Amino acid sequence: MPELQAKLLEMRTPQATKTAVLVIGGAEDKVHGREILRTFFARAGANDAHIAIIPSASREPSIIGGRYIRIFEDMGAKKVELLDIREREQCEYRDYQQSLEACTGVFLTGGDQLRLCGVLSDTPAMDIIRQRVRSGELTLAGTSAGAAVMGHHMIAGGGSGESPNRSLVDMATGLGFIPEVIVDQHFNNRNRMGRLMSAIASHPDRLGIGIDEDTCALFERDGWLQVLGKGSVTIIDPTEVTHTNEPHVGATEPLNLHNLRLHILSHGDRFHLYQRTVLPAVYRISS
Amino acid sequence: MPELQAKLLEMRTPQATKTAVLVIGGAEDKVHGREILRTFFARAGANDAHIAIIPSASREPSIIGGRYIRIFEDMGAKKVELLDIREREQCEYRDYQQSLEACTGVFLTGGDQLRLCGVLSDTPAMDIIRQRVRSGELTLAGTSAGAAVMGHHMIAGGGSGESPNRSLVDMATGLGFIPEVIVDQHFNNRNRMGRLMSAIASHPDRLGIGIDEDTCALFERDGWLQVLGKGSVTIIDPTEVTHTNEPHVGATEPLNLHNLRLHILSHGDRFHLYQRTVLPAVYRISS
Repeated sequence: MPELQAKLLEMRTPQATKTAVLVIGGAEDKVHGREILRTFFARAGANDAHIAIIPSASREPSIIGGRYIRIFEDMGAKKVELLDIREREQCEYRDYQQSLEACTGVFLTGGDQLRLCGVLSDTPAMDIIRQRVRSGELTLAGTSAGAAVMGHHMIAGGGSGESPNRSLVDMATGLGFIPEVIVDQHFNNRNRMGRLMSAIASHPDRLGIGIDEDTCALFERDGWLQVLGKGSVTIIDPTEVTHTNEPHVGATEPLNLHNLRLHILSHGDRFHLYQRTVLPAVYRISS
Repeated sequence: MPELQAKLLEMRTPQATKTAVLVIGGAEDKVHGREILRTFFARAGANDAHIAIIPSASREPSIIGGRYIRIFEDMGAKKVELLDIREREQCEYRDYQQSLEACTGVFLTGGDQLRLCGVLSDTPAMDIIRQRVRSGELTLAGTSAGAAVMGHHMIAGGGSGESPNRSLVDMATGLGFIPEVIVDQHFNNRNRMGRLMSAIASHPDRLGIGIDEDTCALFERDGWLQVLGKGSVTIIDPTEVTHTNEPHVGATEPLNLHNLRLHILSHGDRFHLYQRTVLPAVYRISS
């Protein structure tokens, strides 16, 4: 137990200086307490933060980018800049690469996840972000489309209101910052349980993570994720699945999946990506 | 293994003469193969069936009742009658009670589950149905509102598009034919995962059963349920739940639930209500 107690104490200690990856379900509070954006700001260095906004997913990059610039400037960031990457060629620009080498936080806005991946994947800019996130130099956040791209497999689109089936979800390749997961955003808000189940049936080696609006799964570098914000994070863990008909049925036939593990997490709850353990927000040590 | 083999062989054998309880997610096929209604007809005695239709949930009892009468007459039932119980007093009528004592199948139509319970619960008519279902003399089916009433706790209404929370579901008392379960119908079709989760958070001693349209959970008397029809049946099993905040949070705050077991079942899959075991449709014995 001493090891667990030490871990719990460590988790209760503010970790503002540690980098993290924040996966946000969209529509995060931009006006009132701004808990999620404040946490990103703090993890990116607070008053020492140098934040790069990448609005490539959006069709209104200057409007959406401008809004985030004002928010992080208001919070007191040292430097906030917009990297308005519209074309893959721009990922070769020396000044963009220098910004990505120097910044302490990168924020991926909402929009269309296919557009975001089309512009960024397999580019020098992407290599810099990936390497600096991995080495713990950079805090990364993505909201909505910016959240969808986090896994290796990405949900590009889909429907709701049907029994889980393969045609209910369109899959593509994401940016792979957290390859183990398949993210779905606006999760309960847009009734996306069926499509995330369908995605997991096709990829039972991954973990499904459904994130509600104004809610964030904050991934620490040691494998723990923690929930921030006002909704819930749904974890679909197929590790113990005993059966699925997914390889054998047609695209519109109902899928089955036996022995899924499911967690609904709310504010402060923690889940370990590799150990698959879950800790409630208020965890009392009885000694 | 001989015991399991015997059980599997028994399950593959047609059981047309055994009574059962059919819980139907609504909108069952009434025109083409009519698999679910045919199974009810067979389990109620086929050409020897005497079927009583109870349309009390509906505001158009003669239209909806008339449609089922024609269907079961077409199939060749010996006798089909409409018990158009509109008021609780009618549950005392001697001729209705005689019909319920004599029939081999009772069919509860869709409509409003609160209305159905208001008319039937704690009446002599209800006592006859319950006692004869329990003793294996009567096959019972309910579709939509007629399915919702099957558990002791009943979902009376609710919403979707939100993180699970206590205000997302309105609970009432059902007719309790299968007290262990909380049923939700039109399940994936109307995106009701959130409200069934919310119901289970409040009643973690029950099993959540979400049934899609044109889909049926057929309960045998030995505890096995089997899936019929074209959609899926979702089982939410909270037996192993390690934590929920349900007793401690406000009505609109997000609920958490850690370590749920979830099964998505499709046509032919089986689940045991007490053993909590699941068997895929095609289960091959390797000897």
